Amino acid sequence: MEKQTLSLSAFLCLLALLCSIGTVNGGYIKYNTGTSIVEGKLNVHLVPHSHDDVGWMKTVDQYYFGLNNSIQGTSIENVLDSVVESLHRDPNRKFIYAEQAFFQRWWAAQNVETQGGVRKLVDAGQLEFVNGGWCMHDEATSHYIDMIDQTTLGHHLIKKQFNKSPRAGWQIDPFGHSAVQAYLLGVELGFDSVHFARIDYQDRAKRKEDKSLEVIWRGSKTFGSSSQIFANAFPVHYGPPQGFNFEVFEEDFVPVQDNPLLYDYNVEQRVNDFIDAAITQANVTRTNHIMWTMGEDFKYQYAESWFKQMDKFIHYVNTDGRVNALYSTPSIYTDAKNAANESWPLKTDDYFPYADRANAYWTGFFTSRPGLKGYVRMLSGYYLAARQLEFLSGRRSTGPNTYSLGDALGIVQHHDAVTGTAKQHTTNDYVKRLAIGASEAEAVVNSALSCLADTKSGGYCAAPALTFSQCQLLNISFCPPTEEDIPEGKSLVLVAYNPLGWNRTDIIRIPVNDANLVVQDSTGNTIEAQYVDLDNVTSNLRTFYTKAYLGVSSDQVPKYWLFFQVSVPPLGWNTYFVSRTAGTGKSRSGYLSTMDSPQNDTIEIGPGDLKMSFSLNSGQLKRMFNSKTGVDIPIQQSYLWYGSSSGDSLDPQASGAYIFRPNGSPAVVVSRSVPLKVMRGPIVDEVHQQFNSWIFQVTRLYKDKEHAEVEFTIGPIPTDDGVGKEVITRMTANMVTDKVFYTDSNGRDFLKRVRDYRADWPLSVNQPVAGNYYPLNLGIVTMDKKSEFSVLVDRATGGASIEDGEVEIMLHRRTIHDDSRGVGEPLDETVCVEDTCEGLTVRGNYYMSINQLGSGALWRRTTGQEIYSPILLAFTHENKEDWTASHLTKATFMDSNYSLPLNVALITLQELDDGSVLLRLAHLYEAGEDVEYSRLAEVELKKIFAGKMIKEVKETSLSTNQEKSEMRRMMWKVEGDVGEEPAPVRGGPVNNSTLVVELGPMEIRTFLLKF
Amino acid sequence: MEKQTLSLSAFLCLLALLCSIGTVNGGYIKYNTGTSIVEGKLNVHLVPHSHDDVGWMKTVDQYYFGLNNSIQGTSIENVLDSVVESLHRDPNRKFIYAEQAFFQRWWAAQNVETQGGVRKLVDAGQLEFVNGGWCMHDEATSHYIDMIDQTTLGHHLIKKQFNKSPRAGWQIDPFGHSAVQAYLLGVELGFDSVHFARIDYQDRAKRKEDKSLEVIWRGSKTFGSSSQIFANAFPVHYGPPQGFNFEVFEEDFVPVQDNPLLYDYNVEQRVNDFIDAAITQANVTRTNHIMWTMGEDFKYQYAESWFKQMDKFIHYVNTDGRVNALYSTPSIYTDAKNAANESWPLKTDDYFPYADRANAYWTGFFTSRPGLKGYVRMLSGYYLAARQLEFLSGRRSTGPNTYSLGDALGIVQHHDAVTGTAKQHTTNDYVKRLAIGASEAEAVVNSALSCLADTKSGGYCAAPALTFSQCQLLNISFCPPTEEDIPEGKSLVLVAYNPLGWNRTDIIRIPVNDANLVVQDSTGNTIEAQYVDLDNVTSNLRTFYTKAYLGVSSDQVPKYWLFFQVSVPPLGWNTYFVSRTAGTGKSRSGYLSTMDSPQNDTIEIGPGDLKMSFSLNSGQLKRMFNSKTGVDIPIQQSYLWYGSSSGDSLDPQASGAYIFRPNGSPAVVVSRSVPLKVMRGPIVDEVHQQFNSWIFQVTRLYKDKEHAEVEFTIGPIPTDDGVGKEVITRMTANMVTDKVFYTDSNGRDFLKRVRDYRADWPLSVNQPVAGNYYPLNLGIVTMDKKSEFSVLVDRATGGASIEDGEVEIMLHRRTIHDDSRGVGEPLDETVCVEDTCEGLTVRGNYYMSINQLGSGALWRRTTGQEIYSPILLAFTHENKEDWTASHLTKATFMDSNYSLPLNVALITLQELDDGSVLLRLAHLYEAGEDVEYSRLAEVELKKIFAGKMIKEVKETSLSTNQEKSEMRRMMWKVEGDVGEEPAPVRGGPVNNSTLVVELGPMEIRTFLLKF
Repeated sequence: MEKQTLSLSAFLCLLALLCSIGTVNGGYIKYNTGTSIVEGKLNVHLVPHSHDDVGWMKTVDQYYFGLNNSIQGTSIENVLDSVVESLHRDPNRKFIYAEQAFFQRWWAAQNVETQGGVRKLVDAGQLEFVNGGWCMHDEATSHYIDMIDQTTLGHHLIKKQFNKSPRAGWQIDPFGHSAVQAYLLGVELGFDSVHFARIDYQDRAKRKEDKSLEVIWRGSKTFGSSSQIFANAFPVHYGPPQGFNFEVFEEDFVPVQDNPLLYDYNVEQRVNDFIDAAITQANVTRTNHIMWTMGEDFKYQYAESWFKQMDKFIHYVNTDGRVNALYSTPSIYTDAKNAANESWPLKTDDYFPYADRANAYWTGFFTSRPGLKGYVRMLSGYYLAARQLEFLSGRRSTGPNTYSLGDALGIVQHHDAVTGTAKQHTTNDYVKRLAIGASEAEAVVNSALSCLADTKSGGYCAAPALTFSQCQLLNISFCPPTEEDIPEGKSLVLVAYNPLGWNRTDIIRIPVNDANLVVQDSTGNTIEAQYVDLDNVTSNLRTFYTKAYLGVSSDQVPKYWLFFQVSVPPLGWNTYFVSRTAGTGKSRSGYLSTMDSPQNDTIEIGPGDLKMSFSLNSGQLKRMFNSKTGVDIPIQQSYLWYGSSSGDSLDPQASGAYIFRPNGSPAVVVSRSVPLKVMRGPIVDEVHQQFNSWIFQVTRLYKDKEHAEVEFTIGPIPTDDGVGKEVITRMTANMVTDKVFYTDSNGRDFLKRVRDYRADWPLSVNQPVAGNYYPLNLGIVTMDKKSEFSVLVDRATGGASIEDGEVEIMLHRRTIHDDSRGVGEPLDETVCVEDTCEGLTVRGNYYMSINQLGSGALWRRTTGQEIYSPILLAFTHENKEDWTASHLTKATFMDSNYSLPLNVALITLQELDDGSVLLRLAHLYEAGEDVEYSRLAEVELKKIFAGKMIKEVKETSLSTNQEKSEMRRMMWKVEGDVGEEPAPVRGGPVNNSTLVVELGPMEIRTFLLKF
Repeated sequence: MEKQTLSLSAFLCLLALLCSIGTVNGGYIKYNTGTSIVEGKLNVHLVPHSHDDVGWMKTVDQYYFGLNNSIQGTSIENVLDSVVESLHRDPNRKFIYAEQAFFQRWWAAQNVETQGGVRKLVDAGQLEFVNGGWCMHDEATSHYIDMIDQTTLGHHLIKKQFNKSPRAGWQIDPFGHSAVQAYLLGVELGFDSVHFARIDYQDRAKRKEDKSLEVIWRGSKTFGSSSQIFANAFPVHYGPPQGFNFEVFEEDFVPVQDNPLLYDYNVEQRVNDFIDAAITQANVTRTNHIMWTMGEDFKYQYAESWFKQMDKFIHYVNTDGRVNALYSTPSIYTDAKNAANESWPLKTDDYFPYADRANAYWTGFFTSRPGLKGYVRMLSGYYLAARQLEFLSGRRSTGPNTYSLGDALGIVQHHDAVTGTAKQHTTNDYVKRLAIGASEAEAVVNSALSCLADTKSGGYCAAPALTFSQCQLLNISFCPPTEEDIPEGKSLVLVAYNPLGWNRTDIIRIPVNDANLVVQDSTGNTIEAQYVDLDNVTSNLRTFYTKAYLGVSSDQVPKYWLFFQVSVPPLGWNTYFVSRTAGTGKSRSGYLSTMDSPQNDTIEIGPGDLKMSFSLNSGQLKRMFNSKTGVDIPIQQSYLWYGSSSGDSLDPQASGAYIFRPNGSPAVVVSRSVPLKVMRGPIVDEVHQQFNSWIFQVTRLYKDKEHAEVEFTIGPIPTDDGVGKEVITRMTANMVTDKVFYTDSNGRDFLKRVRDYRADWPLSVNQPVAGNYYPLNLGIVTMDKKSEFSVLVDRATGGASIEDGEVEIMLHRRTIHDDSRGVGEPLDETVCVEDTCEGLTVRGNYYMSINQLGSGALWRRTTGQEIYSPILLAFTHENKEDWTASHLTKATFMDSNYSLPLNVALITLQELDDGSVLLRLAHLYEAGEDVEYSRLAEVELKKIFAGKMIKEVKETSLSTNQEKSEMRRMMWKVEGDVGEEPAPVRGGPVNNSTLVVELGPMEIRTFLLKF
């Protein structure tokens, strides 16, 4: 039997003319891709894009070059090389690109011809930058200043290279969306729209039903409709509809086979597939415009593979005529939506928390990798200060600068970086970049301080003596210059720099080995100091971590913490001298702290107005009260942990880097009886509590401070019982909070949260704990009818109020499972010294305050700013008299009688590469937040820059890429909008002669200055 | 503890200048790729290529377009699109491409600009065609005429489009390499070299030791050094060295990171890797030139990914200077080898069989899918005949032509097609293409015969009446025109066309339902006929397979086979009329065969000289003897099967589509006692033997034929015992063969085989059966001191002589395991009627002859040609007198007194698209093969084309792409070459007036004629 497979179909085929023309020549087909929007038809906007994570499974450079391909065989170089090539092939093709960290790597490696070609593509609108920041930043765990900085970094280069300003927010992947993103990192950047995929699954279902995926989003209570943006939540995800993924090697890639002379011709079928998918989407979308996101993670490795198919679809679908397909971009799409004259649903607040399934709340990443998150926040503040000093001392074209720290901070804002959701090796890379950047910035700071303080330099010094050193590991008592013996005839010179615009008094703390030191201020007066013995927890940490991080193998630890108060003018410094008493005739100024051994059950601490009382019996906090304000709240505090779910029979979802899924048991209280140690002195009272073998806490109440500083040391979290743990601190106040609490949005606005409730849809509560967590960057507040209880944080964390009166903050997490969202690793951080590895220990602070109802904002806003921008300390050893003779010991760059109003912060002061100076001023209060401070503030530029002549002041968009006066504003109709709300208070134009800048509540104004 | 991952390396890194320059700008690097060969250095020839199977896991069109990507996400369109783009980017880049089936699909779809660009690339030597046939044909199971045809198909287009002739044979993947490939499909095509990866693993090991991977290969005994070629066997495989695979997404892809400002800079490391790999290869290679095959299966989906890395390597390796890297091609490489003036080892014969490991002899595919192999061979002969008729009747520019059959046959020569190693769905596609091509060719044949025979048409007929039909399924008795009742007043008109250049007499066999038929020849004489009852096996097959293949659901089967003898002039036809006796006055001419019931134990059959005797007891063959020649050989014949190995504890290798690995048990004899049925008559004696329920055999001895025709019907092979089976027929002759037997090379030369022996290395025998199998296309011969025993086959099969005197041929295989060489399916062919599937039944023939020693060649060569080119039958129903009056009933196109000498075959006669006519003549005998015929033959072109005026005769290379006189010949030094062998006999130039073509033994001469 020959021809075993000569099937019936072959014979039937013989009957068809098509089949019998068995020649190869299909002939060239010119595809008509030159369509634009067609009124009266459903328009399918094909938006080609590649979602390129700035680090995740691999590091940013591994992604860029296609290194480490055993993890993911992807190269961004391929994407950009091939996209540019494909765009040149057909002027109708379009592509959008977001991540400048990648684009700029690529751009720098191109020759002049390629760059010229790309400029043409950008000019022609074929290549459009969206977002345009260094990365697609996270919106939950990023600070608004970091968001601004990383966006400015990208926008500045786009403006410089292409003279373009991105119009669309493209936050397709971040895990929930913030109010600040909408009104600040959206509208204030000049974006007309923001687009994203990830919203709560229940929210999405409701919105698909209502056709309310697309909304007008007013993220700011203060600004209301004046800061609204068109927001487009995708109906499925940010990939193309099923069956329209055209990546090389893709399994479900079904190309259009349009050569009738060859086999498997499928034009009609594919056109029908296209129209079916379009209609499905049109059924959940208002207007006759739908967007297809033609891309996915790291796609377009070979762009032509996509464009060739899209060309064919546009050609054949439009030939078919039932719908209209076109190459488009988010801005073209938004223009079309705007032109449609539709009324849109209103959205306020934010899109947190995000769940993609019933038991999959992405609220774990609010806290994941708290060490990284703390480092990022610390360097964010440091970067702000370093740029100030870089500007003040004159930016140098050679030598160290702050760029690499800005670069690293830009990268690390990525939604798989600061989120803690990258693989460990990638996280290591982030931290390495930060460390290198910090090191270079430290050199800038040292150099600038040397230069500025040196009276001989006269404000500019060509080659300053780099004598200063700084202490990045101060928190674990590692600070060689303060620990070292002070050489004979010299003092420890401590320069304290204040990056804030206000005068500031603060307590600083340095490790020393000598209890016979005298501390003098810049005028030579001896000032009060206090010694506290270094505790064992810190000394053990120091030993292990300096070995792990620095390879330092000495086991010697300093004996004391030395506390003293410093006072520093705005944008200026003060100098303190620490000297040995012996042989110099000075008397020691220090107070050795006393260990308290009270007799009754309660011990009360606090050298100032704020007092806390603890039970000696249980060792636990009982009450906080403020003798000045009279606020008095019974309050307990304890550490607990949720067992991480490993998945269960009903749902395999485990808790992991992204997802917080407790295992269903109540949180375990780590200790009901806590050893307590109290240290007292004139400057600080400390309460040391060892909650268990791996949780240690020091509470510090300072004189002149209205809050308690709580330093926690958590870890290594044990998992040898087979249970991952998510560790929280829980404050239980005797307050009737009625389900309500407030959390900040990226460290700026406070949003009202209601437990087990969403304003936008009737919530099905599946995860009563995880589903009530919100991201904190500044803090969390609860209130009753009389008082406010506020907790501020020093880094991004998750927080919640699970019962009335309770506030909890998740401080550390360690899981033994991956949560199946791609990272492919459990969140299980370890630190190793040689072969000894242990779980990561995290040390950080949070700050508690109690206030009368309505009075908390002042504390929160001022303290929040101080936490973000701590006093910067630089050390050297010098002869005090010599130093004083040759240096300015105390100075401010501002007019010496001037300081910024307390409701305004200077959030950026930076000299740009063209010599112009970027100044950003932020009003810190929301409308109605504080009786005194929620109003128009005034800033006198001339007094800020007292020593300089301002030649030009240009107000710009938030990212400096366009003049404020030229920014467009799109008008939208909103459902149910009746009349006008009262206009928000905003500052007026800056008068060129007075140069006074007005700022309304929450206003941020950005200026480019020339001197 | 902040900064958990601020590792030591980060801090060390701070010390290095490189790391601390943390800026993004790497800058453009212009790579210097413009190197050529450097004398005195090791030259690494980077040869970029993509190995594109013309069907395998997917069909040819699926590969081309990237359809069916769930199997393999690959698209040849991407390869060619992106390679061309990349070649344009740098004039130093090069690429080679082989498979014209793909290239021509692509070329036809390009616009004029792209085509122009590609022409420039080809002219500049950037894009070089290698092989240049339709596919990379198999060398074991392909017939030399098919190899020539498929190569000509590609070469003709390359010549037409680019005016180029490929210089390199590029047979990198076929599973062993044939002598005919070397001297015929190599040298005669004008190739200087042939390159391949797959040689026996023992051979390779030895050759690496001896530096004898590269040889001068003399594939032809007849031609010796006059047809030698430089042959390059790769040291590993046809991919790049480990770590130099640069395909997008490839896991082991380690790009050169040469931006010192970014992380993971690795230039030095990668340069060292390169040099290490180069030196490893240099150590097994003669001269200072090594070739790196920079490609793999379906690679270059995004070519730039490869070229970018190769650019960098060439740049940095040459900067390093230890070795010299360059873009190259096989022809540049071969020129360099030739220029090196080295002496090369000599290689004769071939590279079969191929084993890649001890238990992995690729000798299964010699037989895999015997149905497909039979269909291919049948259509190969049909294609030859159809092209003759197309030319003879005048090729038409519209309407059916033979192109699609040639296209399909070209595709199916691919080394995963006719080999039987493609997936089932791909095999179905091959067969569908063949069926469609055959159907169109059938229309050409019908039309041509109508036209040519019609006296009114005068040799050219514009719209011939398409009255003929043909019977592709004649072997299972399905032939509607012969089965139907012959209408009143009409006869069955049978036109028999003879594609050979000789007069020919043959017995034909058609199914009929009437035993009262009279057969008349073209002159009206009644001729002898014989009826044989249709056997049950055939009628059951017919019922099942016509339903399976055609959807024919009638269970009616014809009653008889009608045999009669036809006699047809060379390149001509004769007409026979079959009529009903009743009512026409004619007397029936048929002889109803008699069933023989002999009395003694032995029955002797054979109406002619050749006799066979069978044991009535066992039912088995005992002896063959020829009464004319006196040759008399005791011989048994039986069917056996090897159990397929499923792998065992020592080696998991299973038997499968590629690999024959018997399970170690001796072959199982299917039956020792066989029911026997003998049918006798004047034309044919038939012996029917039912060996078991699934093996049936009919032996036919015809009058005037010196051989036995054995028709086997095998299947469905049962596997319900869990054992795959490899079915052989084994002939055991009483001959002392001394381990030696002879098998053909692609149907042409016979090569001497010695059991358990290889001339090139001391063989370790691991597989005493599988390792002694060789591919058969023509047949297999054994000899003793007196006689020859020859078996010819009707398709590609595997054959061996495992014991002296034995010849076995593997006829069918069915396995239950995949053999892990990529196809991913067991070789388990089934045929379905609705939901009923059963294993494939295969029916075919082999032919046995016994001859005096030295006399077998004549039978083998002549019969081989007749098997390849059977008489073509076309049927219609017409009134005999009307037909005779209006038609030429017998004719030849040649001079009526002329026929080709018996040692010359006309292997191609084809009108090309430009009107010129391709004529190929082949001498059929090797030097010394036959006393009479192994000598110079003469062919008179004027007498072949008796009716036409030859205006021009141009002798060309085998594939017509260059004039014979212009072909270059490279000279090589060969180790141990002492003096000159005698020059082979070759024909001289054709005299333009006599137009006599001389052909020496084995010579094939190709001409383009103009009339």
